[in-house]
Amino acid sequence: MFGRTLREAPADAVTTSHQLVLRAALARPLATGLYSLLPLGNRVSRKIEQIIREEIDRIGGQEMKVPVITPAELWQESGRWEALEPNAFRTKDHNGRDYMIPYTHEELFTNHARQEIVSYRQLPMVVYHFQAKGRDEERSRGGLLRVREFVMKDSYTFDVDHAGLDRAYEAHLAAYTRIFARLGVRAHAVESDTGAMGGDVAHEFQVLTDEGEDTLLFCAACPYKANLERAARRLPEVAPTAGVPAVAMAPFATPGLTSIEQLETSLGLPAAAFLKTLLLRAGDEVVAVVLPGDRDLNHAKLRKLLGGRQAKFANDGDFDAAGGVPGFVGPVGLRARIVVDVSVGPGAYVAGANRKDAHLRDVLPGRDFHGEIADVHDVRDGDACPRCGGRLVQHRGVEVGNIFKLGTYYSEKMGASYLAEDGTKRPIVMGSYGIGLGRNLQTIIVENHDERGITWPIAVAPFEAHVVALPVKDAGVRAAAERLVADLETLGVEVLYDDRDDSAGVKFADADLIGCPFRVTVSKRNVAAGKVELKARRSAEAELLEAAGAAEHIAAAVRAVRDTERATAEERAARATARA
Amino acid sequence: MFGRTLREAPADAVTTSHQLVLRAALARPLATGLYSLLPLGNRVSRKIEQIIREEIDRIGGQEMKVPVITPAELWQESGRWEALEPNAFRTKDHNGRDYMIPYTHEELFTNHARQEIVSYRQLPMVVYHFQAKGRDEERSRGGLLRVREFVMKDSYTFDVDHAGLDRAYEAHLAAYTRIFARLGVRAHAVESDTGAMGGDVAHEFQVLTDEGEDTLLFCAACPYKANLERAARRLPEVAPTAGVPAVAMAPFATPGLTSIEQLETSLGLPAAAFLKTLLLRAGDEVVAVVLPGDRDLNHAKLRKLLGGRQAKFANDGDFDAAGGVPGFVGPVGLRARIVVDVSVGPGAYVAGANRKDAHLRDVLPGRDFHGEIADVHDVRDGDACPRCGGRLVQHRGVEVGNIFKLGTYYSEKMGASYLAEDGTKRPIVMGSYGIGLGRNLQTIIVENHDERGITWPIAVAPFEAHVVALPVKDAGVRAAAERLVADLETLGVEVLYDDRDDSAGVKFADADLIGCPFRVTVSKRNVAAGKVELKARRSAEAELLEAAGAAEHIAAAVRAVRDTERATAEERAARATARA
Repeated sequence: MFGRTLREAPADAVTTSHQLVLRAALARPLATGLYSLLPLGNRVSRKIEQIIREEIDRIGGQEMKVPVITPAELWQESGRWEALEPNAFRTKDHNGRDYMIPYTHEELFTNHARQEIVSYRQLPMVVYHFQAKGRDEERSRGGLLRVREFVMKDSYTFDVDHAGLDRAYEAHLAAYTRIFARLGVRAHAVESDTGAMGGDVAHEFQVLTDEGEDTLLFCAACPYKANLERAARRLPEVAPTAGVPAVAMAPFATPGLTSIEQLETSLGLPAAAFLKTLLLRAGDEVVAVVLPGDRDLNHAKLRKLLGGRQAKFANDGDFDAAGGVPGFVGPVGLRARIVVDVSVGPGAYVAGANRKDAHLRDVLPGRDFHGEIADVHDVRDGDACPRCGGRLVQHRGVEVGNIFKLGTYYSEKMGASYLAEDGTKRPIVMGSYGIGLGRNLQTIIVENHDERGITWPIAVAPFEAHVVALPVKDAGVRAAAERLVADLETLGVEVLYDDRDDSAGVKFADADLIGCPFRVTVSKRNVAAGKVELKARRSAEAELLEAAGAAEHIAAAVRAVRDTERATAEERAARATARA
Repeated sequence: MFGRTLREAPADAVTTSHQLVLRAALARPLATGLYSLLPLGNRVSRKIEQIIREEIDRIGGQEMKVPVITPAELWQESGRWEALEPNAFRTKDHNGRDYMIPYTHEELFTNHARQEIVSYRQLPMVVYHFQAKGRDEERSRGGLLRVREFVMKDSYTFDVDHAGLDRAYEAHLAAYTRIFARLGVRAHAVESDTGAMGGDVAHEFQVLTDEGEDTLLFCAACPYKANLERAARRLPEVAPTAGVPAVAMAPFATPGLTSIEQLETSLGLPAAAFLKTLLLRAGDEVVAVVLPGDRDLNHAKLRKLLGGRQAKFANDGDFDAAGGVPGFVGPVGLRARIVVDVSVGPGAYVAGANRKDAHLRDVLPGRDFHGEIADVHDVRDGDACPRCGGRLVQHRGVEVGNIFKLGTYYSEKMGASYLAEDGTKRPIVMGSYGIGLGRNLQTIIVENHDERGITWPIAVAPFEAHVVALPVKDAGVRAAAERLVADLETLGVEVLYDDRDDSAGVKFADADLIGCPFRVTVSKRNVAAGKVELKARRSAEAELLEAAGAAEHIAAAVRAVRDTERATAEERAARATARA
């Protein structure tokens, strides 16, 4: 076997699943966020790939293969050549033409659709491929969970109208639910931001784990689930005039009090009594965001509001132009585009006076300042569910898949249209749907391990049985082990055979680390007694089998686990689909 | 089905196989040399991939997956970061680090070997992957035969010594022979230049076709086969003193005679009576190559002689420095590194005098000038075989695979070593072995088509049977066709079902173009008569089957073709291996 197991993981692998990926010789880094799959990891990855293929084929998917080097012209048509630049790997040929290693392949498939699809009679259509994506992420970490190159299954649906897209989207939602059930991963469909994809509606599939980078809000009372980037909340009801004094706003001295915390302490008021005003720059525009002092800005919501532009903190020139003073910025009289978060209520607030060492008291939104009202704040644990008012609970999660209703976002920009039955030309209605192989591989480990190593579901295990010969130098042991391996393979069992000249301790530790569902031990004592030892990875007890018929017994045990696991997955998928 | 067949291929597709790739909706170009595989092409490609996988697994291959974005540091260790630049796609991340889309993956696998291999006890080892390669070829043309991105299976062998490498190389030679036999392609193992790979010995697998870009020399009398880049010849035997006059060389006027052709005509002597001296620059060095007037320089042989440096024509400064005059260059008195081709015999020649409008007669190699003697000329049709003296015949070919004995070329540069049984540290002895999927796909078409379209071998056909319903609007026809499709699929036959509302002419033309081995027609007349029509793509006659039992009959016919084809492939591979 090419690939050495490691007693200790390198120091930069801090999460358990990252450590196991390296220790069990599944993958090796080449550079930050760039990994090779070693043979064991590749076997798991190919099984994941095949499960995905089967489920996408089942909903009518047609597999294709689109390249990794893709011409800039297509990305320029959609506007993503520049928009994706911060995370893009680009290249040039020797004639000076530009190419991108795709972030995803929307433009490419839209291009093929406009070439191949002429008439409504060809629709609906589902196409997909497995292909490398390149994303120059600033902080790639956590092993295969966040990398800079990864293979994704991305499918694309083409429909005549939004009703067709809804059906395609539902079909993918169901297919993904089945995929994750078969992979042995408990994934939750969560409302998400459409982000760099454009389009209207999106869901992510999230597996709950502290290793995850995403923050999620799940309602404790109803099925509402959303990514923090998208989560809303029900605002507390306030009587329109509640707590609104008739008094005019007035300045007062606040020397050196530049933060909400300092103001809280100094004035003895809660954070919610203040307005937090953030001065930002998005492209050529200066934007001021006004939030209650106890709420944080949600950058994803703001980006969506700003048409996809990323806002950065304003510079000194921006402060001068807007008439704001750092530490004492407030919305009153500010010369900027003012965005007022929806959670700013009708009450009186303390706000920056736009003068050094001064604030204003009794500032009334709508009386003393105006702005466009939008939801741009972070929802948090304990907030009220926007659907039912129940309690939102915060989780950490890993995104293992996502689905997007693109609508006509790409087809209009790129001129992908079809002739409708009535003879009119209409834009194709599209969806896109992604699952990353490596991230799922590691997430399966997150959900399937113990203190000794990985405990693979049999559907994705690198091998089904791990045969250990002890000691391999003993001719009788060796002969018995090799016969057993051959018999098992004849019976359709995938076998990893450990014929290294190592101690029982080393071999058992490796078997537990690599985590094949069954360990089979052929030892000198067992051979003498006409026995073979069988141990399930997830069970504490081993079983002694008669050597005669052992292969048949083990093959039956393997089949039983395959069947049980498959039935459990079917049942779990059916339950999840019924709930959704 | 996503992908439209085309009546006419675009004008830039000039070869038959390129036209068929486009017309049968197998692939579509995105830019020069960059193609997407449509669903039909992807099905063929995946079957090719699986045949390769099975044969490499059979010789002990372990599959891995190495990325497309690879760090410059590894390429710098081998020296190929610069050497491959003329054909490389490079990229940078946002921290300014350099990466290459691999030309091949030698450096990457050598890197993994030095990390994973410690001891001789782990060797030998065979690893491989299927991965995209990037090659910015100047003239990519001919469809999938010469592209700028393509998926290659590349395997790498690691051995303790050259005897081990010889065994690994033989195993790959046999595996490749089996692969091509199974793909339905007649490939010849041909001695080849090691080119950009480095290393010692190399073979290419060449399919003979006028569509090919390579020139090959095969001996008509013995198994000698070589690429022009590498081919040698047996030189005619000449008595050491034959034709050598005792007279001294002497200048004479040749006003305006700057080419061999002009000299031939003017002096009435054959081209072989002259010396052709080419002044070249390779890096910082000026090199003069001296050839008989009737022989051409072989750039690949010269590049190998110059340690991999590519020679270009000398500039004016080089001529001045060397003391040569364009059109009248000769080896006598020239100030340059002089390479004398082996085919320059001991006779007296006419050569340039290094003065304008003058040549020298009676120039004797070894008396009047000296230089290093090397084989740097093109061998041609009719030359004598270097092994047996038989007649060499020139062919055109497409290279569909190649294998290289790398030896310790990479392992020494990159420090990939193992601990030998005697405790010494030794470099791992390596081989590398490539097969491109797309090029094989198109070469199968080169070898399997007629005037109506493709005639796929069943092992790689996109589907085994193509069911045509005529007319599809007839409910009875539709029901019968759909029942037949379902029955065939249940019996394990891969079916393409044409349910388009089109004429018999269109549908039959498409079936012939796409080229599935069997066409099954369900027509109104046949349904009424209780019949189904079966026609093999490679046969002129159709057969009328009873509708009852038609599926079983067709499935049996499919199985028979599968079996016959497999037996033929086995036999062909065995014969080829026996010959080699």
